[in-house]
Amino acid sequence: MPEVEHNAPRSYMRLAIKLAEHGRGRTNPNPVVGAVIVKDDRILGVGYHARYGDLHAERAALGNCTDPTDGATLYVTLEPCCHQGNQPPCTDAILQAGITRVVIGSDDPNPLVAGQGIRILRDHGVEVETGFLREECDALNPVFFHYIRTGRPYVILKYAMTLDGKICTRTGAARWITGDAARERVHRDRNLYAAVLVGAGTVVADDPLLTCRVANGRNPVRIVCDSKLSTSTDCQLVRTAREVRTIFAAAAPSTERAEAFRERGCEVWELPGDGGRVDLDALMKRIGSEKLDSVIAEGGATLNWALLQRGLVQRVQAYISPKLFGGAAAKSPVAGEGVETPDGAFRLRDVTTTQLGDDFLVEGVLAGE
Amino acid sequence: MPEVEHNAPRSYMRLAIKLAEHGRGRTNPNPVVGAVIVKDDRILGVGYHARYGDLHAERAALGNCTDPTDGATLYVTLEPCCHQGNQPPCTDAILQAGITRVVIGSDDPNPLVAGQGIRILRDHGVEVETGFLREECDALNPVFFHYIRTGRPYVILKYAMTLDGKICTRTGAARWITGDAARERVHRDRNLYAAVLVGAGTVVADDPLLTCRVANGRNPVRIVCDSKLSTSTDCQLVRTAREVRTIFAAAAPSTERAEAFRERGCEVWELPGDGGRVDLDALMKRIGSEKLDSVIAEGGATLNWALLQRGLVQRVQAYISPKLFGGAAAKSPVAGEGVETPDGAFRLRDVTTTQLGDDFLVEGVLAGE
Repeated sequence: MPEVEHNAPRSYMRLAIKLAEHGRGRTNPNPVVGAVIVKDDRILGVGYHARYGDLHAERAALGNCTDPTDGATLYVTLEPCCHQGNQPPCTDAILQAGITRVVIGSDDPNPLVAGQGIRILRDHGVEVETGFLREECDALNPVFFHYIRTGRPYVILKYAMTLDGKICTRTGAARWITGDAARERVHRDRNLYAAVLVGAGTVVADDPLLTCRVANGRNPVRIVCDSKLSTSTDCQLVRTAREVRTIFAAAAPSTERAEAFRERGCEVWELPGDGGRVDLDALMKRIGSEKLDSVIAEGGATLNWALLQRGLVQRVQAYISPKLFGGAAAKSPVAGEGVETPDGAFRLRDVTTTQLGDDFLVEGVLAGE
Repeated sequence: MPEVEHNAPRSYMRLAIKLAEHGRGRTNPNPVVGAVIVKDDRILGVGYHARYGDLHAERAALGNCTDPTDGATLYVTLEPCCHQGNQPPCTDAILQAGITRVVIGSDDPNPLVAGQGIRILRDHGVEVETGFLREECDALNPVFFHYIRTGRPYVILKYAMTLDGKICTRTGAARWITGDAARERVHRDRNLYAAVLVGAGTVVADDPLLTCRVANGRNPVRIVCDSKLSTSTDCQLVRTAREVRTIFAAAAPSTERAEAFRERGCEVWELPGDGGRVDLDALMKRIGSEKLDSVIAEGGATLNWALLQRGLVQRVQAYISPKLFGGAAAKSPVAGEGVETPDGAFRLRDVTTTQLGDDFLVEGVLAGE
């Protein structure tokens, strides 16, 4: 038997974390999860949750083993499930395989079920270690954790601006502020999150497609917050609604307008109003109830403020291009009323900066989230 | 004799570059220059230009030698001067010391004198190599090169903003957007550049001191662009004008107002107007003629645009704090008319990003400069 490497358990869990990443953007609204099965310091099998509805990571890893798994240890990034969903409970599979030790990273974030999988395993004599590399494992699933706790999507406020804080010139022209590398990154993100949200003003100004234009990408669901259904039915979103799921969120729209959008393949959600505008909290609740666990909010400035002010934003992505537009009349990314004093600012934490060609991306989590 | 290290000449010049840095902020409007004297692969002496009016680097290095310098090589970051200024010509000192080889980094940027120092040395039988590590040596003196070529100060447009591009909240409150580390860096820069320039609006809004608050720092000259001398004579700048040189740049001010400022220790410059405002080109010419080689333009948004539009900005420093203010009425850093289309943007090159506590600084050179 080879000498046991001192930090071998860490390397097994880190492999499970890497495997989990392979499912990103395909498991929503489920988490990404990775698993590694080890016996006598030898890896017997590895697996991950590849796609919503497919095998969970634990079963995928067990299915990957050719040698007997009795007496083996399972490393898994998230507490195994113990309830019947699309898939039978993972705890059953673990017990059937004769696994005698389970090392877990993240707890199940759902307080109603947390710990039950662990209890079942322990009741059957399995040794269970929890919270192993917890921080790294937790970092895999901010979207899932938020969604499962709140029933609302994880919202990423995303915008592109110049180094003097402009999202367009004084004439409203915004194409293009950032270069190819930054736009490529936007498309990669659309491949990872469930939906994209824009205001009607953005559709009128830019007539965007909001699709994911990367190889083997999948399109996010496109949601337009359009209280009065004032968008033209001739816009690109409506014209492509039969190929890509497209939702117009309205507050008491006319039957005629709603019908015009539906005829063209769009969904129209009739939501409670909030002073004539769509109640954004109701919108998020509805998005969550449709199993859409994440939303990239791509504009514009008024919608951005409304989302922030209602506490509906979890993460901010600011793409910054090293150029200056100037212009007292050129818009900046967050409009609305704004905070009164600097102390009242919305602060970010865990901020990172990424160079993307000439541009860079500043990202962070909204403090308090 | 020891084996000659293959890249020893580079290490000598890089030492000269490091030495040159010690003079930064003290030699204006002269360049920073470093020199190293080497004989038989041994350093005989080193020196740098420490302060305006003091010995030039070449003489400082020669004075630092205790062994005979005949037959030695001089490494110097900038072409030696050959004219009488505050100091006698360096070429004389080099010849008197018996130096037989001179290795030069940057050319003299003044086209009227460039190459003359080299010609004099060669005429006296000295071997001269030019352009050695030129790029690194040139990077020492962007301010000097700009100033000597144009007679105008090198202008750094500096501002602090939130990640949503705001320099204040909707109510005008701006204290503080950035944290201690960023503000410390601002004070360090005030120690390096000759002057600070603000508009009258900034004085009214913030009543700043604009001094350099670092240990052993020296204050920059403070210049207020105040066309009508509308600033209160009770502001901090005026009240401290006897301790720190303070200039009000006006266009046809009333004799009475001008006298009120002068009585309190301020200088008042009466400059040509440009539609009732100070002609900024005339202001820069005047600043240059006062041997002020560099200006940090610290606001506000209207002055920033005016400087940019007139091509008077060489470098941009944007301090960005990872927070959001929101507010359609909250100002962004560059106002005025602004460009019409994204293609017309003012672009930066050689962009760098520096983390400063929670904030970061994005800096770059204005393309075309």
